[in-house]
Amino acid sequence: MLSNPSAWADAEGLLRRAHAILAVTHVSPDGDAIGSLMGLTHALRGLGKTVTPACQDPPHPRFEYLKGVHDIRQSAEGDFDLLVVLDTSDLARLGTIFLPAQHGRLPMVVIDHHVTNLNFGTVNIVEPTASSTAEIVLALLKKMGVPLTPDIASALLTGVITDTLGFRTSNTTSNTLAAAMELMQHGAPLPEIIRRALVMRSFDSLRLLGAGLSSAKLEGRLAYATLSQKLRRELGVQEERGDGGLVGTLITAYEVDVAAVFVELTSGEIEIGLRAQPGFDVSQVALEFGGGGHAAAAGCTLPGPMRDAVNRVIPRLKRVIEET
Amino acid sequence: MLSNPSAWADAEGLLRRAHAILAVTHVSPDGDAIGSLMGLTHALRGLGKTVTPACQDPPHPRFEYLKGVHDIRQSAEGDFDLLVVLDTSDLARLGTIFLPAQHGRLPMVVIDHHVTNLNFGTVNIVEPTASSTAEIVLALLKKMGVPLTPDIASALLTGVITDTLGFRTSNTTSNTLAAAMELMQHGAPLPEIIRRALVMRSFDSLRLLGAGLSSAKLEGRLAYATLSQKLRRELGVQEERGDGGLVGTLITAYEVDVAAVFVELTSGEIEIGLRAQPGFDVSQVALEFGGGGHAAAAGCTLPGPMRDAVNRVIPRLKRVIEET
Repeated sequence: MLSNPSAWADAEGLLRRAHAILAVTHVSPDGDAIGSLMGLTHALRGLGKTVTPACQDPPHPRFEYLKGVHDIRQSAEGDFDLLVVLDTSDLARLGTIFLPAQHGRLPMVVIDHHVTNLNFGTVNIVEPTASSTAEIVLALLKKMGVPLTPDIASALLTGVITDTLGFRTSNTTSNTLAAAMELMQHGAPLPEIIRRALVMRSFDSLRLLGAGLSSAKLEGRLAYATLSQKLRRELGVQEERGDGGLVGTLITAYEVDVAAVFVELTSGEIEIGLRAQPGFDVSQVALEFGGGGHAAAAGCTLPGPMRDAVNRVIPRLKRVIEET
Repeated sequence: MLSNPSAWADAEGLLRRAHAILAVTHVSPDGDAIGSLMGLTHALRGLGKTVTPACQDPPHPRFEYLKGVHDIRQSAEGDFDLLVVLDTSDLARLGTIFLPAQHGRLPMVVIDHHVTNLNFGTVNIVEPTASSTAEIVLALLKKMGVPLTPDIASALLTGVITDTLGFRTSNTTSNTLAAAMELMQHGAPLPEIIRRALVMRSFDSLRLLGAGLSSAKLEGRLAYATLSQKLRRELGVQEERGDGGLVGTLITAYEVDVAAVFVELTSGEIEIGLRAQPGFDVSQVALEFGGGGHAAAAGCTLPGPMRDAVNRVIPRLKRVIEET
């Protein structure tokens, strides 16, 4: 970290001088978006600042254990003298929470760990070696000498845990564990946070997972399954999208190198989740079909019906396995 | 840790003076049994000792990534001058690997983290605050100044990870994370170890999980399912026992306080796995039916047929929920 020390110093200066701070994060916020947002919000409030956390979409109910998560507003009207943008690689990813006419002239601190970040801020702390934006916020707070409370620590540990899937992703380093340890020592209950942020889910999603696993096909070292709207209705599943963790479960089998799950949306489009074991790369396939992602986890959306989407994608995935 | 400093010093003395060491662990060895056994074996071999690791049952194939795991013998004949017993609370848990006539007169170092340990060794390092026996072995090696190699570190991190289910259990402390961080710094690949030791499983077990989730019942806040031998045959599942992670998955639902899975064994007996959310206790029920365990995870075995076992246990579990 600290790839650009002057940016860190400039960010600290802007934060210290500001009085009314608008802190925002990306649409469809994940645990790192919410965790880094609330961690920074609590910390700056501790310094006497007025801080307004905001995001286009409300946080997922699973993050309700985080203090103050209901303060996150879905509109960002107001008088501010500083904008802080967290975990967001470009302005478009902020969605409707960014109001160009009002926010465009504010000094802007960008804090992010995505290598694709466009450095669109006045000051940009972009550290791709960090596991999560929360890990960068922790480093910044320590540099600023801000005391860590249990609320700050729990929010930041939520970011670390969710972006590493519980220390399981390859961006997990001993620095990540050092950060987690420090956050625990400041009152963040690690096992409880893992349970709430990563493990717990609805019984509906378990039913969907069960149906998907029961109907999954294993062809060579490719596993795949389809989840239709009809199946959701039959199971009485309320959630209109999502795969109940199915694709992430299929890829855990020893016999599987590549996994795919085809989810029929209410629009009739087919959302396709792809996963690969280390050594295999599904990102290129996702890209070819207009999507994107990483070697190990990628996705795309195709027109329906289901059969057509399956017939287009499955042969291509089999080629990935053959050619690896 | 270090609840009894003189035991630590005595253990170090015995280990340093020994030449031919037999190191053993409990029947049906889990990741902490295998990890602490191999970590200590590698370390003592590094000190020039002859070390024979042994266990009644061979390690699960999922631990094949650990160097030297095939050296673990299923018999313990031989000339030894020290016996080290790892992760084992009483001699009976060693099964047939302990030969009273041959081993009974050897000095014995016991290293364990189970609070139920009977302190049956000549020297007993029993530290119930440790997450795992591997964490104690790490502390002992550091105390002895033994250099940590990647092989030692990977074996010990396997113990830490498996006994905490990936830092998810309530015995995970910031000391546990400090140990994990140190082991990573000495070459243990944390994400890979989590994947191999905790996440990966057979496609068969996924099929079983799918069938179990699909047929699971939710009655009030109790979820339960049955896995018959007939179902295994229909699914073509080779593994004769186990629940494919079903009970551990059912308890992850928001709607569920207590989960139970009834597994029909080839003997016709019914093996029952119980899980509870924090605040609920299934250990008493397991105990009443002749089993045991902890508040959050317990189990017992009852005579068949399935229906009788279900009819005995389910009403009792509903009472647990009502009375909590």
